[in-house]
Amino acid sequence: MTEPVKYVLDESRLPKSWYNLMADLPSPPPPVLHPATKKPVGPDDLAPLFPTALILQEVSTEREIEIPEPVREVYRQWRPTPLFRARRLEKALGTPARIYYKYEGVSPVGSHKPNTAVAQAFYNREAGVKKLTTETGAGQWGSALAMAGAFFGLEVKVFMVRVSYNQKPYRRALMESFGAKCVPSPSPETNSGRAIWEKNPEHPGSLGIAISEAVEVAATNDDTKYSLGSVLNHVLMHQTVLGQEAMAQMEMAGDWPDIVVGCTGGGSNFAGLAFPFIGAQLRGGKKVRVIAVEPAACPSLTRGKYAYDYGDTAHLTPLVKMHTLGSTFVPPPFHAGGLRYHGMAPLVSHCQELGLIESRAYTQTEVFAAGLQFARAEGIVPAPEANHAVKGAIDEALRCKLEGTARTILFNLCGHGHFDMQAYMDYFAGRLTDQRYDEKELAMALAGLPSVPA
Amino acid sequence: MTEPVKYVLDESRLPKSWYNLMADLPSPPPPVLHPATKKPVGPDDLAPLFPTALILQEVSTEREIEIPEPVREVYRQWRPTPLFRARRLEKALGTPARIYYKYEGVSPVGSHKPNTAVAQAFYNREAGVKKLTTETGAGQWGSALAMAGAFFGLEVKVFMVRVSYNQKPYRRALMESFGAKCVPSPSPETNSGRAIWEKNPEHPGSLGIAISEAVEVAATNDDTKYSLGSVLNHVLMHQTVLGQEAMAQMEMAGDWPDIVVGCTGGGSNFAGLAFPFIGAQLRGGKKVRVIAVEPAACPSLTRGKYAYDYGDTAHLTPLVKMHTLGSTFVPPPFHAGGLRYHGMAPLVSHCQELGLIESRAYTQTEVFAAGLQFARAEGIVPAPEANHAVKGAIDEALRCKLEGTARTILFNLCGHGHFDMQAYMDYFAGRLTDQRYDEKELAMALAGLPSVPA
Repeated sequence: MTEPVKYVLDESRLPKSWYNLMADLPSPPPPVLHPATKKPVGPDDLAPLFPTALILQEVSTEREIEIPEPVREVYRQWRPTPLFRARRLEKALGTPARIYYKYEGVSPVGSHKPNTAVAQAFYNREAGVKKLTTETGAGQWGSALAMAGAFFGLEVKVFMVRVSYNQKPYRRALMESFGAKCVPSPSPETNSGRAIWEKNPEHPGSLGIAISEAVEVAATNDDTKYSLGSVLNHVLMHQTVLGQEAMAQMEMAGDWPDIVVGCTGGGSNFAGLAFPFIGAQLRGGKKVRVIAVEPAACPSLTRGKYAYDYGDTAHLTPLVKMHTLGSTFVPPPFHAGGLRYHGMAPLVSHCQELGLIESRAYTQTEVFAAGLQFARAEGIVPAPEANHAVKGAIDEALRCKLEGTARTILFNLCGHGHFDMQAYMDYFAGRLTDQRYDEKELAMALAGLPSVPA
Repeated sequence: MTEPVKYVLDESRLPKSWYNLMADLPSPPPPVLHPATKKPVGPDDLAPLFPTALILQEVSTEREIEIPEPVREVYRQWRPTPLFRARRLEKALGTPARIYYKYEGVSPVGSHKPNTAVAQAFYNREAGVKKLTTETGAGQWGSALAMAGAFFGLEVKVFMVRVSYNQKPYRRALMESFGAKCVPSPSPETNSGRAIWEKNPEHPGSLGIAISEAVEVAATNDDTKYSLGSVLNHVLMHQTVLGQEAMAQMEMAGDWPDIVVGCTGGGSNFAGLAFPFIGAQLRGGKKVRVIAVEPAACPSLTRGKYAYDYGDTAHLTPLVKMHTLGSTFVPPPFHAGGLRYHGMAPLVSHCQELGLIESRAYTQTEVFAAGLQFARAEGIVPAPEANHAVKGAIDEALRCKLEGTARTILFNLCGHGHFDMQAYMDYFAGRLTDQRYDEKELAMALAGLPSVPA
């Protein structure tokens, strides 16, 4: 009998509730502030953007929030997702470490994003909403929401950062396959977009601008709400299905992680894996080292300031306290489009302040090299975002080799790279560079952070 | 409790053997003939191309052939694959039919092809082979063999039909991610390729030419063997893991198909699903209607001649009796590259002659429309090849609606379309045409079939 490589949970073990880290934190994160009054926001302030159920989840301190059965029914199509032991990678590295990875690439759109897209579409449908707007960079989030919209009969409009709209036509085609409408941003369709578009119709756009456009459309149309793919508390919470499953699967393997690794852009896949482990630790369980890995070209956790900032460029969103590079910061080009956001989820930021997680940054050429080593050993070509987690896990495994210590490492392989082969082609052709951000621009963006009364 | 949408087999139920339809057929298929002598080939004739173990499998009449443990260990990474009940599609169609699909897109390269690639790489490694050559059209097969080669430490050289090499750089990048070498065919690297390449270095190529090149390299290098992704008996047999799993999953669902549907190019994914069901029927089990769906632009089963023909353009391969459009037939352009082969697997052809299967052909615009209807209901965007099976299943479900009959339909969703989004973009843009082949060219190709002594 060979050793197991895969741990599969029976469908009956699909989590029945999402896990809310707020219940176990020693202190709550700072309040969200209204952009005009700079006073804490109330549910009414958020009502134009989100249905009540999601607003309540955003501020809930209940440990467990029940997953509605129609959401679980959709989840069941690909959940519980497999947990793999990376035995061939361990052998290739010659490490005594045991490396496990949770694999979210088995979802129909190839990433973890449907975990929250399906939940958000459900609650909006229940609230009588007809249309959803959102933004997308590389397109993982947009395609997940497009699929969820098709399932629940909602129209979906996606503002796609123009440079990605032009460079990633296949992600756009995927969204359109599900019947969603995809608009290059900045667009003439909104006030915030038009102001930029009129000066330069070929403006490359940014996530911050696209968020402004999507928020504006939702705020000004009664039948339309806004949907966000990361950063917010309820979004991170929806992702905890994956971490809860991973805990059950680690038990099945008779093992438990010493180290948990995830990549961070807005923070949702990282939180989805890490929060259940952090919560268990806070409730007296085993101490786990949790490592957030981010791109060196957009290093909010390792180089950003922990401060109140806007989520978007036009400053339509509330102010949240987070590790931020400043809402005007524009990172240099790199391929992990899902990690190109100026801020970090407030809850992830708060965890770092509390010393519950550590963070590190890698350049893109080193993460692609790690991703290819993984692909040749394990057969799965990771998304560029996921390569950051792969690199973090491999580095820890190599440290084990150096120290002769057999630690258990668990990381989240949040998606496959089938839509990102251009990035691999660029890597093979030597066209990937490790361009650094401009220190002066970062300093300026940070100097422009809004002032908030103490 | 909601109704199940997914049937998952425990890892312990991964098949222990491949199923060989030869054991249950009422008569054997006609013998394979040597291209020069036109006498039946013996194992020695095939030895330059294949390792002994695979040659023995090719001619075996044993019902079950044990799957080696190292092959099962790799299979276990993604097998058993899920069987889904397409409840949302049923609802969208308003059909009383129960529609099930076996989903092979969960393999690391997104198709069923690794089922045989892994087995072939294993047997070649065991035989001391260092290098494998093969051909690929759209790239599903090439990427599967590239991955399997990486797992078993074999160098892989893929002759890729030039038009696909240029139009599908992402499949090529996937092969290169696994360390394989990809060569546009016709190439100057072989005698058969050079003869064409010298006249036109930009010749678009064909599967027939690429096979000639790959066979030539294997035949003329001691450390190199040839690997084929479809058509041959042993390749079809390796795919029966999926049909055997589907049988167990249908039992788990408390149901059994009245109709089994698969798409056919060379025949391997179709045979993988259908042969175990046909075998059970031949041994006295329930009668099942089995439908092979092929592209109207390359209709070997519905318009080809059942005759001896070569597998390649340069006539280096043995002669096999099959439904063929003639080895010189060039189909008009269409997107399902995996179905652009002039011949059909001899065993599938023989089944049609015996009345065990029926066949039908669809045009590409109608199969893309069916694929999109499926995607919006089920979330999975199928590969263009798989869209043919989707269309076949939907048509049967609509017939059930018309007749008011609740039949059970099972089809094979042999792969996802994440690498094929250009085809969907072309469809959305109205650029997909249903170009017919030229009847005169088909007649000429058929007139040129080799004469074989009775």
